[in-house]
Amino acid sequence: MTQNQVTRSSRREFMGGAVAGGVLLGAVGVQGSMALAAPQGSLPQDAVVLFQGDSITDAGRDKNATAANHQGGLGHGYAMLLAAGLLADHAGSKLKVFNRGISGNKVPDLAARWQADAVDLKPNVLSILIGVNDIWHKLNGNYKGTVADYETGYRELLKKTVEAIPGVRLIICEPFILRCGAINDKWFPEFDQRREIARKLAEEQKATLVPFQAMFDEAVKQAPPEYWAGDGVHPTLAGHALMAKTWRSCAGL
Amino acid sequence: MTQNQVTRSSRREFMGGAVAGGVLLGAVGVQGSMALAAPQGSLPQDAVVLFQGDSITDAGRDKNATAANHQGGLGHGYAMLLAAGLLADHAGSKLKVFNRGISGNKVPDLAARWQADAVDLKPNVLSILIGVNDIWHKLNGNYKGTVADYETGYRELLKKTVEAIPGVRLIICEPFILRCGAINDKWFPEFDQRREIARKLAEEQKATLVPFQAMFDEAVKQAPPEYWAGDGVHPTLAGHALMAKTWRSCAGL
Repeated sequence: MTQNQVTRSSRREFMGGAVAGGVLLGAVGVQGSMALAAPQGSLPQDAVVLFQGDSITDAGRDKNATAANHQGGLGHGYAMLLAAGLLADHAGSKLKVFNRGISGNKVPDLAARWQADAVDLKPNVLSILIGVNDIWHKLNGNYKGTVADYETGYRELLKKTVEAIPGVRLIICEPFILRCGAINDKWFPEFDQRREIARKLAEEQKATLVPFQAMFDEAVKQAPPEYWAGDGVHPTLAGHALMAKTWRSCAGL
Repeated sequence: MTQNQVTRSSRREFMGGAVAGGVLLGAVGVQGSMALAAPQGSLPQDAVVLFQGDSITDAGRDKNATAANHQGGLGHGYAMLLAAGLLADHAGSKLKVFNRGISGNKVPDLAARWQADAVDLKPNVLSILIGVNDIWHKLNGNYKGTVADYETGYRELLKKTVEAIPGVRLIICEPFILRCGAINDKWFPEFDQRREIARKLAEEQKATLVPFQAMFDEAVKQAPPEYWAGDGVHPTLAGHALMAKTWRSCAGL
């Protein structure tokens, strides 16, 4: 067994489907027939969960509130909604949840702050959503990175991560856009190419992929794009909630 | 059939257990075995969902943001978390969710603003959480209301509501406290008496009861009281998330 295989194996240890330390609602005599205590994979005691990315992850977080589980520091988006749900359902695990997304970030911006804002936090679970600014800033004339740069830079980031944090569980979120607001035909096909790279890197790393684009493509059959993301990029509260739900389903947590 | 029975019957119309317009995650090819598209009762098109109460409901909402579904106007607590989840899972219903909780409120404070802040919004679903200040302010010497006053005032509020809004679905939340922070023996047995009254009124009105005290009594077996509510009254993010989850389970929405 190679070192890499050992890492892969330990990274999978807490992905099991057993019901973990969640509060069992059935026991409190709630009305209605729906059992909300959904199956949850377990998390190790004192597990660190880290959300990394751009403005979608940042979601207006208070940059001075750096402590774990601080609501202001978790922002107003899917990362906060996920922290809320995970802290409620894994109460026995003493989770520490951090949000270190920064508005406007692209892959090279993550790379520049990766040691301090990711590796040093020693996450057990690391969720990354990055890519929309890599093309948006290019369309605006403020960046020259190519699709190949996105692939190379992102792969390097992931490689550095699994080397520095043996056993880290990677969750790679598919970049997404909705057909409204700032989005027009100029975004294609390059946006789709970057999206495919995120999917490919998830497969290379045997990471969990959260298919946000596929999710929103389904969601617009229920309500128009603006319902989910006013400008086509930044989700509404409904959009963030749908992301959080899908993330948990994919992660099994 | 009396008028009252007609009202009761129509109030139940959207409580069915059928899967409603929620986005079916199964269709987007997400990984993992967990089906998160839980059974949901349906909601009428353009349904208005209103959260009423004190600081636990208020949760730092922006009082100037009075429009439906405005994240800042929904605050940072269970009402916002519920709005997020309901807007995601009932996207086809064009819900309008409002939070009109006000910090410090007791039953008489709700009564004074009930027409403008509840009846005039014509809610299809009205969720009420009130009672902790009715005793807290009394313990602090700032209020003289008795347990009987709580019962009479609360019953009057509910009676006025179902008369003014035929078909409204009432969701009555059990007041709760946790044994930490501001909570000491002086709160008992009067707190429990008020709690029982909220339960009795829910039964009288055939309303949905959300048993928050029973829920937190179970939750403290997983993590200490401070994990759920630092001062024993105001929930943490984890506490609010657990409330939101239990509310949905009880409401079947």
